[in-house]
Amino acid sequence: MSNKYVLVINSGSSSLKFAVINSVSGDAVLTGLGECFGLEDSRMSWKYQGNKQEVSIVGEENHHQLAIGKLVGIVAEYDLTDAIIAVGHRIVHGGEKFTKTVQIDEQVLKDIEAVKELAPLHAPANVIGIKAALAAFPTLPQFAVFDTAFHQTMPAKAFTGAIDKTLYDQYAIRRYGFHGTSHYFVSREAAKMINKPVEESSFISVHLGNGASVCAIKNGKSVDTSMGFTPLAGLMMGTRCGDLDPSIIEFLLNKGWTTEQVFETLNKKSGFLGVSGLTSDARGILEAMEEGHEGATLAFQVFTYRVAKYIGSYMVALDNLDGIIFTGGIGENALLIRREILKYLKIFGYKENEAADADARFGAEGIITTADSPVAMVIPTNEEFVIAQESVALMA
Amino acid sequence: MSNKYVLVINSGSSSLKFAVINSVSGDAVLTGLGECFGLEDSRMSWKYQGNKQEVSIVGEENHHQLAIGKLVGIVAEYDLTDAIIAVGHRIVHGGEKFTKTVQIDEQVLKDIEAVKELAPLHAPANVIGIKAALAAFPTLPQFAVFDTAFHQTMPAKAFTGAIDKTLYDQYAIRRYGFHGTSHYFVSREAAKMINKPVEESSFISVHLGNGASVCAIKNGKSVDTSMGFTPLAGLMMGTRCGDLDPSIIEFLLNKGWTTEQVFETLNKKSGFLGVSGLTSDARGILEAMEEGHEGATLAFQVFTYRVAKYIGSYMVALDNLDGIIFTGGIGENALLIRREILKYLKIFGYKENEAADADARFGAEGIITTADSPVAMVIPTNEEFVIAQESVALMA
Repeated sequence: MSNKYVLVINSGSSSLKFAVINSVSGDAVLTGLGECFGLEDSRMSWKYQGNKQEVSIVGEENHHQLAIGKLVGIVAEYDLTDAIIAVGHRIVHGGEKFTKTVQIDEQVLKDIEAVKELAPLHAPANVIGIKAALAAFPTLPQFAVFDTAFHQTMPAKAFTGAIDKTLYDQYAIRRYGFHGTSHYFVSREAAKMINKPVEESSFISVHLGNGASVCAIKNGKSVDTSMGFTPLAGLMMGTRCGDLDPSIIEFLLNKGWTTEQVFETLNKKSGFLGVSGLTSDARGILEAMEEGHEGATLAFQVFTYRVAKYIGSYMVALDNLDGIIFTGGIGENALLIRREILKYLKIFGYKENEAADADARFGAEGIITTADSPVAMVIPTNEEFVIAQESVALMA
Repeated sequence: MSNKYVLVINSGSSSLKFAVINSVSGDAVLTGLGECFGLEDSRMSWKYQGNKQEVSIVGEENHHQLAIGKLVGIVAEYDLTDAIIAVGHRIVHGGEKFTKTVQIDEQVLKDIEAVKELAPLHAPANVIGIKAALAAFPTLPQFAVFDTAFHQTMPAKAFTGAIDKTLYDQYAIRRYGFHGTSHYFVSREAAKMINKPVEESSFISVHLGNGASVCAIKNGKSVDTSMGFTPLAGLMMGTRCGDLDPSIIEFLLNKGWTTEQVFETLNKKSGFLGVSGLTSDARGILEAMEEGHEGATLAFQVFTYRVAKYIGSYMVALDNLDGIIFTGGIGENALLIRREILKYLKIFGYKENEAADADARFGAEGIITTADSPVAMVIPTNEEFVIAQESVALMA
């Protein structure tokens, strides 16, 4: 067995995703998910060569630690221990400090902890995951790959809020952007697809999943992106509102809502769920729409219209445009959503190749526009592959 | 003297703008401003045939009433009393109730008062102005012209927030949009300029003043606009932030800021003023930029970039585009700002006609792009003319 495997860990506030990735092919040999940490039904499931297993996580200790302890055993069970040459951690927020992937040492760990001001939910969870992995795999080099790092190339005009500048000086309030590894990955794949050096390419990457963001990428570098200070901004998402008039918050607070109630609503009861009154899941929205559900239809319309508007707006950040890239769970699989967005782009000359677009699903990639149209394509994202590659690259 | 004059009144929370407008030509024979109402230096100034006068407003009574009382005398002094056939009030917010100009009666007054929920600063001031004018000019028909009415044609996909739909059902939280009379006026003028029936035209109207908004206008009707539930949303403005990540508000509230402090900052200390740290005035920004002021340069860059992004985004709301219209104090007069915005639009084929663009200022209108470019134009707005015209039209 090749010894080029990387264990990729994504540690959330009450969950832990993991995968063992071939850093050359990007294939995942083992994938798993621990969830409901801290609750009674805390559990971990994993898949190896098509077989799925699940165990409960029981114990007084921290469930992240327990889960990573189990992970040591799972990896050993499949004889993967010696094949794994590094651990790569997906870190949500690197602030302005981290502009690229770094090997984790004591100072890096401190610096990631320091970002908890900006990412109060994610940074502590990331740190717990790193510490548990350092204890469980003490001989492996470990790396931090940041969701924000790719966007640190944004110019000031794109990352500066149109607000009192002392908020930036004092609190580092600015646009950071997220989904960086995904936008990075698909822009590289897109450049290959059109046989252009990425350093001379211009793309608009549209990552549509439960979280969603758009990124303008010029010569391989992020120049603007729709998420902001936090992942709440920009596009409408599964349960997040994206852009909205800030005065709506003032209105609700003056009505007696608490800060917690307002932001619980904007983060967890808005987006597809809030507009449809039905579900946060795009598949559920599309099914209900076919059955004539009004709320689902409106949610579909608002979502696609807003994505199209972002694409139009990001064209001005580029001198030319080599392609619009659809990725993420929805971007890769929801034909009706891509089709609707492309309709809006007719004014720019985009024409859907209906057959090609219908084919581009369930992991297939390809150009979905006609030969006489500007290019749009579907490219399945693979953030774990980026994490594995960047980790291995730093070992060289 | 023609008896086709309309007294136009714009009653703000501590101010009162007025003008006597020729409803055929749009010319203002008398203009004036009362300001600092409720304060010690409360005063009113006016201009008639080039002569400017000013008086103090002193008294225990409501200063809006005192000002309108003086206005009766001023109008008489210039022999305008008999020439005025109607009073037109500019009303900031008409909610979903008012989709067009209406003659004011008791019910209309009640309905405008009812909107104070949505416009807590403006609606009461508007009502005070109407009541004072009804008392001062009891024989004249009076009309309410709403800043929001033009935008009531927006489709649901444009006016629906990507939030919990119960907020719309319960509080009427949605996009309303403002600057309606301005976007209406310039789109009609633009259609004339290119010899196209407005009912078959498509424009993007860019109103840049101390307040600023963009509007997509299809077949003469607003289909989207950048201001939202309130005039805080959308573009960066003189002191307003426009769009920003809602989580920034959560961050500041959790830091101990009060609701008042947060929204005071976003409404009055942001925009040009906040980013530059210098001034809310675009002329001041441009002057400081020439002297190399970093904050002013950044404010210029953020402002123009965001305007350009909105223009790009609104193209997707239109099937084709007959012209981009610049209007408002900045849009009409700030050549450098128009030039910078047009540079961003190169990707859509726009090319500035530098000489024509330099000529289009201080009230001049014209096309500012080259013959082989899609069209952009400057059109001075005249909201008072619209108010006068609509009032007279309803009298017929």
